[in-house]
Amino acid sequence: MQTIITGTGSYIPGEVRSNQDFAFVEFYNERRQRILLDGVELVGKFEQITGIAQRRYAHEDMNASDMAALAAAAAIQDAGADPETIDQLIVAHNFGDVAKHTCQSDAVPSLATRVKRALSIRNPGCVAFDLIFGCPGWLQGLIQADAFIKAGIIRKCLVIGTETLSRVIDPSDRDSMIYSDGAGAVVLQAARETPAGSGILGSVSQTHALNECEYITLGHSYSPEADPQRRYLKMQGRKVYEFALKTVPAAMKACLEACTINIDQIKKIFLHQANEKMDAAIVKAFYRLYGYEEAPCHIMPMNIRELGNSSVATIPTLFDMVRKAALPGHRLDGGDTILFASVGAGMNINAICYRM
Amino acid sequence: MQTIITGTGSYIPGEVRSNQDFAFVEFYNERRQRILLDGVELVGKFEQITGIAQRRYAHEDMNASDMAALAAAAAIQDAGADPETIDQLIVAHNFGDVAKHTCQSDAVPSLATRVKRALSIRNPGCVAFDLIFGCPGWLQGLIQADAFIKAGIIRKCLVIGTETLSRVIDPSDRDSMIYSDGAGAVVLQAARETPAGSGILGSVSQTHALNECEYITLGHSYSPEADPQRRYLKMQGRKVYEFALKTVPAAMKACLEACTINIDQIKKIFLHQANEKMDAAIVKAFYRLYGYEEAPCHIMPMNIRELGNSSVATIPTLFDMVRKAALPGHRLDGGDTILFASVGAGMNINAICYRM
Repeated sequence: MQTIITGTGSYIPGEVRSNQDFAFVEFYNERRQRILLDGVELVGKFEQITGIAQRRYAHEDMNASDMAALAAAAAIQDAGADPETIDQLIVAHNFGDVAKHTCQSDAVPSLATRVKRALSIRNPGCVAFDLIFGCPGWLQGLIQADAFIKAGIIRKCLVIGTETLSRVIDPSDRDSMIYSDGAGAVVLQAARETPAGSGILGSVSQTHALNECEYITLGHSYSPEADPQRRYLKMQGRKVYEFALKTVPAAMKACLEACTINIDQIKKIFLHQANEKMDAAIVKAFYRLYGYEEAPCHIMPMNIRELGNSSVATIPTLFDMVRKAALPGHRLDGGDTILFASVGAGMNINAICYRM
Repeated sequence: MQTIITGTGSYIPGEVRSNQDFAFVEFYNERRQRILLDGVELVGKFEQITGIAQRRYAHEDMNASDMAALAAAAAIQDAGADPETIDQLIVAHNFGDVAKHTCQSDAVPSLATRVKRALSIRNPGCVAFDLIFGCPGWLQGLIQADAFIKAGIIRKCLVIGTETLSRVIDPSDRDSMIYSDGAGAVVLQAARETPAGSGILGSVSQTHALNECEYITLGHSYSPEADPQRRYLKMQGRKVYEFALKTVPAAMKACLEACTINIDQIKKIFLHQANEKMDAAIVKAFYRLYGYEEAPCHIMPMNIRELGNSSVATIPTLFDMVRKAALPGHRLDGGDTILFASVGAGMNINAICYRM
C-alpha cells in the first residue's frame, strides 16, 4: 500500500509586516540591556542573516484553528475529496488557539475537532486529534498518517500545520522578527497501484532531548518593564544553528538510505523555512555528505523572504505553492522524487522522501 | 504481531483535598449568581451525584511533565525495560505544563521531550511527541502505538497520560470539585507469540465535532469579580451526560464486535472516571445492548471516590492499581479479557479490547 498526496492547500494571512515596521521598536538583549544599534541598520542586518523581508500576521478575529480550516478546505477541494470519507484529521501546532491580546493557549477541544466542525464533517469515524512535535509537527503528522495507512487502519487523512506565532513572541526580542503566522494542509490517501511508484517512499524521525530541551522554550520577556508572569517563545539561535547543521544533513541522508534513493535522484528539497542562511548551510552540508562541493542551484524552493517562519506551516504552504506552480523558477512533475526535512523544538528532526 | 502491555506505573500527587475543604467556598452558577445552598449540604449533594469524596493536587513545584516522568519511570521499572530500547514516547494531555499560579500552557518543547530528558534517554530514535484528544487521549495513544507496532515501524512504546487540572479550574464553579491531578503510564511491546493470544484485540475511535464541540471548552469564571481575560475548564454537565449515555455503550459494543468478543467474556471494564453515576449508567446501558437488565457486580473497578477525575490519567492510574492488586475486590489474571473505554472533550470516544 502506498500513501499519496492528492491535494494541498494553504492559508496565508493578509496582514503584511515589513522589516521597516520594526525599525523603531526598542529591542533588548537576553541580559535586558537596550540594543543601541540604529533601527534601520538593525533590521538590515537581520534581513542579511535570515533572508526574511516580510512576515504575515493573522487578523485579530482569526485563530490558528480558523486558518487551519481554510487551508484544509482548500486541500480537500484540490483533492476533489468528499470530506465525509476522511478517516483521520491531524492538526500539528505548538500553542493551540491563542486569542489576540491574551496569553492562554486553548486546545480544549482540540484544534482538529474545531477544524472538523468548521468543515461540517458529521462522520464520527473521522478521528480528529492534535500533534505537538515542534516545527517538524506537520511532517510528523504525515509520518503518522502513513503508518496508519500502511497498517490498513485508515484510507484517507487530512494533515494540517497551523500556528499564530505573532501571538506568542516577545516584542522586545529581535528574534520576534523571524516569526510569522500561517497554515498549510494536505490530503493523503491509500493507493494500491500508483503511476511511477509514487507516494511516501520512506521517512526518518528523531528526538534529541538532553540539553537540546533548552534550545527552544518559553521564557521571560527581554524588556525590563514586562510582566514577569508572562512567557514568550525564546530561541537560543546559535545552539539551534549548530545542532541543525550537525544532525539534519545526516538525518536526510539516513532517510534516502532507508528507501535506497540516491541524492542525484532528488529534484527538490523542501526544508522547514527557519532562516535562509541556516537552510542553505544544511543543504550544502547534506550534499557534502555525498562528496559534492555545493548543492545544485534551484534544489531548494524558498518563500521565507515574503512569509517568514510560521513553524509547522512553512513546509505545507511552500509545497502548496510549488505544486501549483505559483513560485517562479520551481515546478514539480509526475515521477519527481523530492525530500522534505524539518527541525525544531524538542529538538526534533524528521525527513520524508516522496515521489510525485 | 500483537501489542502487549509489559509494565504499568502511576504518580498520585500527595496533596489531598476533601469535600469538606470546599464547604466554605463561594460558588456561583453560570449566570454569575451566588449559590446560596449551605456549604455542607452542597458538598454532600456533590458527593452523592459524582461519587467523589477526595481529589489530589500536584505540589506547586511539580508540573504535568514531572508527574509524567515519575509514572513513566515506574512503568519502565515494572516492565524491566531498558529505556534506551523505547522507540516511541507519547504523552497525552490537554493543557501542557501549567506552572502553579499562572495561566499559560507550556508545551514548548513537548511534554514528551521533557519526560524523555527526565528519563535520560539518549537514543535519538526514541521519537517523543504529545497527543491532544481530550480525556480519551491516553487510550488514543495506545491505539496509535498499536498501529505503529502492527505496521512494523516500532517495537516498544511508552504511553503516558498526565494532567494538572487543579491549575485550570474556576474556583467559583462547583464543577471544580470534580477535577484532580495525576499521571499514569504503560510500556507497550510488540510480541510475535503471546500466551493465550494476549494483547490488544481491537479498538474503536470516534470524534463527534458538531454541537459537541461546545460541551467541554475553556470559558470565563462564574465569579463576578474574576479577571475577564482569563479562561477556565468549563463543562456542560448535562449535555456531556446525555451524549456519553447515547454514544459510549454503542462504541464499546462496536469494539467488541470488531474483535469478535462476546460481552460474557469481559472480566473487567476500565472506564474513564468522569463521575460515578455517569460511569455506572454507561456500563448498565452497555449490558442492556446485549439484553441484560444489569451489569455484573464488580465488573467496573473505580477509584474516583479517593482520586477524582484526572482526565487522561484516570484509566492508566486505575489500571496500574488493579494490575498490581492494590484495589481491594479486583484482580486480573493472565488470559482475562478486559475493555477500556473513554469519553471527553471533542467530543471524542474510544475503546480498546485487551487480553491479559
